[in-house]
Amino acid sequence: MQKSQRQLQPVPLTNVTIDDNFWSPRLRVNRERSIPHIYNKLKETGRLAAYKLDWKPGMEHMPHQFWDSDVAKWIEAASYSLATHPDPMLEAMVDEVIVLLASAQQADSYLNPHFTVVEPQRRWKDLRNGHELYCAGHLIEAAVAHFQATGKRTLLDVVCRYVDHIEGVFGTEPGKKRGYCGHEEIELALVKLYHATGDQRYLQLSRYFIDERGREPHYFDQEGSAVIGGKEYHQAHLPVREQSEVVGHAVRAMYLYSAMADLAAETGDETLFEACKRLWQHLCSKRMFITGGIGSSMYNEGFTADYDLPNNTAYAETCAAIGLVLWSHRMLQLECDACYADVMERVLYNGVLSGVSQDGTTFFYENPLASAGNMRREEWFSCACCPLGQYIYSQNDTEAVVHLYIQGTGRLQTGGQQVTLRQETDYPWSGKNTIILELEHPANFTVKLRKPGWCSKVALQVNDKRLVVAEQKGYLTIEREWHDGDKIELNLSMHAQRIYAHPDITQDIGLVALQRGPLIYCLETADAPVPLHRVFLPKEVALLAHHEKKLLGGIMVLTASALLADAEGWGDMLYRPFDATVKPMKVRAIPYYAWCNRHPGEMCVWLHQT
Amino acid sequence: MQKSQRQLQPVPLTNVTIDDNFWSPRLRVNRERSIPHIYNKLKETGRLAAYKLDWKPGMEHMPHQFWDSDVAKWIEAASYSLATHPDPMLEAMVDEVIVLLASAQQADSYLNPHFTVVEPQRRWKDLRNGHELYCAGHLIEAAVAHFQATGKRTLLDVVCRYVDHIEGVFGTEPGKKRGYCGHEEIELALVKLYHATGDQRYLQLSRYFIDERGREPHYFDQEGSAVIGGKEYHQAHLPVREQSEVVGHAVRAMYLYSAMADLAAETGDETLFEACKRLWQHLCSKRMFITGGIGSSMYNEGFTADYDLPNNTAYAETCAAIGLVLWSHRMLQLECDACYADVMERVLYNGVLSGVSQDGTTFFYENPLASAGNMRREEWFSCACCPLGQYIYSQNDTEAVVHLYIQGTGRLQTGGQQVTLRQETDYPWSGKNTIILELEHPANFTVKLRKPGWCSKVALQVNDKRLVVAEQKGYLTIEREWHDGDKIELNLSMHAQRIYAHPDITQDIGLVALQRGPLIYCLETADAPVPLHRVFLPKEVALLAHHEKKLLGGIMVLTASALLADAEGWGDMLYRPFDATVKPMKVRAIPYYAWCNRHPGEMCVWLHQT
Repeated sequence: MQKSQRQLQPVPLTNVTIDDNFWSPRLRVNRERSIPHIYNKLKETGRLAAYKLDWKPGMEHMPHQFWDSDVAKWIEAASYSLATHPDPMLEAMVDEVIVLLASAQQADSYLNPHFTVVEPQRRWKDLRNGHELYCAGHLIEAAVAHFQATGKRTLLDVVCRYVDHIEGVFGTEPGKKRGYCGHEEIELALVKLYHATGDQRYLQLSRYFIDERGREPHYFDQEGSAVIGGKEYHQAHLPVREQSEVVGHAVRAMYLYSAMADLAAETGDETLFEACKRLWQHLCSKRMFITGGIGSSMYNEGFTADYDLPNNTAYAETCAAIGLVLWSHRMLQLECDACYADVMERVLYNGVLSGVSQDGTTFFYENPLASAGNMRREEWFSCACCPLGQYIYSQNDTEAVVHLYIQGTGRLQTGGQQVTLRQETDYPWSGKNTIILELEHPANFTVKLRKPGWCSKVALQVNDKRLVVAEQKGYLTIEREWHDGDKIELNLSMHAQRIYAHPDITQDIGLVALQRGPLIYCLETADAPVPLHRVFLPKEVALLAHHEKKLLGGIMVLTASALLADAEGWGDMLYRPFDATVKPMKVRAIPYYAWCNRHPGEMCVWLHQT
Repeated sequence: MQKSQRQLQPVPLTNVTIDDNFWSPRLRVNRERSIPHIYNKLKETGRLAAYKLDWKPGMEHMPHQFWDSDVAKWIEAASYSLATHPDPMLEAMVDEVIVLLASAQQADSYLNPHFTVVEPQRRWKDLRNGHELYCAGHLIEAAVAHFQATGKRTLLDVVCRYVDHIEGVFGTEPGKKRGYCGHEEIELALVKLYHATGDQRYLQLSRYFIDERGREPHYFDQEGSAVIGGKEYHQAHLPVREQSEVVGHAVRAMYLYSAMADLAAETGDETLFEACKRLWQHLCSKRMFITGGIGSSMYNEGFTADYDLPNNTAYAETCAAIGLVLWSHRMLQLECDACYADVMERVLYNGVLSGVSQDGTTFFYENPLASAGNMRREEWFSCACCPLGQYIYSQNDTEAVVHLYIQGTGRLQTGGQQVTLRQETDYPWSGKNTIILELEHPANFTVKLRKPGWCSKVALQVNDKRLVVAEQKGYLTIEREWHDGDKIELNLSMHAQRIYAHPDITQDIGLVALQRGPLIYCLETADAPVPLHRVFLPKEVALLAHHEKKLLGGIMVLTASALLADAEGWGDMLYRPFDATVKPMKVRAIPYYAWCNRHPGEMCVWLHQT
């Protein structure tokens, strides 16, 4: 195999601290509330007890075929928390779950309660719909995260044995099944396992799954399993290197493309990288909501047609948004182009963050861009387990790169030594960022700072001197001899903006959205107790921003003079030859991520423009 | 029973001739093409052969539970044609079908091939879903139309025997089922049968079905039949006199409300009339498309919520539109208020007419107000059998009323003699109408001429003298001594108009529709080969009308200077901080009824306004 062709290396989670006004409270809520809350849910719903393998027909809590993935995601999330915030209680809980989980591993190393006690006859017989390899993938990710956070091999060893078993079942060798999973996940997990263990076999198995996908004769046809979605639903309609359009189930697609990017990086496979770039381009230029949400239809929980981005019925699953962050982050390491970081930021601050309530215990599965007032966050859905620290910095021998502006520190390896970047910022409320460098001895290397796509004007100072620097693919590039204590001041001009959609997005034409910095805004009836569809924002009125300390945890709100179409005077008329009169009103917009944290009501991102 | 409380009496079809540039070719197409075409379809699909009762399990063409209604509708349509255009060939065909149909009547007078040969055990057991009484209703309507057109009792006698059988099965008397049909139809048919035969028992049976509907204990619950829609689907959620909102399946609703209006008229039942007025008001002020189409969702083929009128996914079934004409016409006889005639006209010229292709052989079942280009007219759906002649005039002892402006003659009974009104007009292309009165001897009576809701300015002359007259509920009222040859000239000022929707129709806010006279207009890509969603019509530009003799059978088109949002310059951007540029373009709008008669493409009624 060729050498990695990544331009950048991510900075490990443990080398990053986050001490940020915006994110730290959210991470704390995730740590202190979401993780225990999800644990309780796993227990209540029988997901943990399933590993006792004592379920019998007629009993309640029948182990479902993808329950393992819920448990694994929790272990993964808890491990990321342990990596940066050691907590003996949590660690003991994780250990206990792992003991239980390990006890369900069969003599032949197989591990899946559903296919052990409920449908043993279906083991490896319905790859298209059965989610077995998908669950295995999440177990692998959990094991790697747990190992990296704690150094413990307890789950890692279980999982390595299970993967050895899987390797015995699948492959091109005679006697093996030439199958792959209907729900991608194991492909990227195996790359992580390769990194954690150094064992090339895991990389090869991942590559086998990727290479085999969509080949003719088609495995799903031969398997004869039930067809729930077409082959596009599983991104198995073509060999992956021939794919050019993002199709099917959005979460599945994100996992696949992430794994393709991983393999492109590990093996230097240009055709895979080209396919990733084509697919990326297609997604971001045709099929992504302004919030970074993806998936236009609840019917397939996925993609529909170019420019079909309905606001009310947007599916925009939180998990798919997280998947897009994962893929974007991988693309960014392959090619240091701010287009990837821009999308990563768009999704994190909007489509992902909207999925979790302010108190961290209720969730949106779907994240539509408009609601008639019937949306409520639900108690249990998924576990927001973004290892945010990973996404902030990248490094290589000569470059220290800042992708996201989040207060805290990153310890990078560059210029032959450890370089610590200490960010001070009030982002996303302010575009001012101060970065102090800490290093042992002066050295030449490049600091690259992302100039966000939303920002049209930037000012840069190093040690109080203004600097005009070159921009490389959206990164301000400062190449010089750096000294300990050097101070970079970056001022990203941040103001409220009107944003317009491509005129072929029929659902948004004639409408306008509001954005400030990376945040997309919305109206909610909690702020404007009028029917939101009747609000018109004139083209020319000023958008004012001010901070509301007590509102929704402290947010910058946008206000403007708008017009409200009047329903008075219509009597019983449904149609008439003159337009509705309008009366002036003030609108107050809040960041989209913060919606549905007050009393339920209407919400909309896109407003009529007049 | 009380005396009729109708203010007006309709003028029988046979007393009306239509010799109109707009309608006559359509009626001819209906006569010469649609009626034979549908006959062939009835034959091809086995609907006629079903009456032989020789179907056995395993054979093709299993008689469906509502096939009878298709045959009956054809007989009804053919009879209306025979009433005004005698045609021995067609009459012979009808006779032959009636002989076949009559041969399927059972010894106990029951008549329904499906429940005779396919599911005899379900006879009268599934009123909610089985359509038995619905089919009987259409047979009754066919029999009455056939009798009135030809004087022949062949089908009428068959049907009277069948109704006698039905009367033995249903009613409040001990031993009878207290049921009613899940698909209303027989209620209004029985009123027609009462008029044709003078037998009060038929009126009483109709009243029983109406009174029983929605009563508790609920028949559908007791029957235990499958619940496909809720009770609202069948308008059986409440006793009919307590209903205030139009709900459920739109065609069912129209048949019910028509029957309620009939019974209110026949029996002087004020509570029924009040219910009709409430329901009418609700429909027309909250749930009707601008085309007069009704039914917002294909899910229930019916009503959803107030102001929910989606353009692309409008169901707006042609049959429901016809149903709305039937109901409107009945309301208009009860109360001479132009609001009813306005809706009748809106529906006839738009939502009904759009259902049939120009050549009369392909049909729309659904009539959406916007299409992305995927709509095609289908070969067989239904039979447009509007007896248009009936809707033009009404009469009573002292009044001759003109509701619709269609060239031809109406022979009315008023002022103690026969009065013939001879209309000359180029409506709907022109608002000029000349009406010549023919009568034996001078007499005092009132001529009422509808002033259409779309018209804001009207000029009236009698015998070349300008006249300013009182307006009563939308009718210009001329009370005088009339002489043979008197000439009324009515000039309805007709120009292209912008029409706006109530601001709570979220799907139409910010949009504008075009109308001229009674016709709603639309854009089609056949006239403007651009993506129609990108067209913006400026508020101030002039709308010009001119006649295109060779286009779509001769139509008035509307043209205007518009703006086209430009997709060039967007590159791969999906969102950006400045709006699309626009370039000028000309748009040409055609009447909505005429769409989809050229090569398939996009269509929209509502345009963006700028």
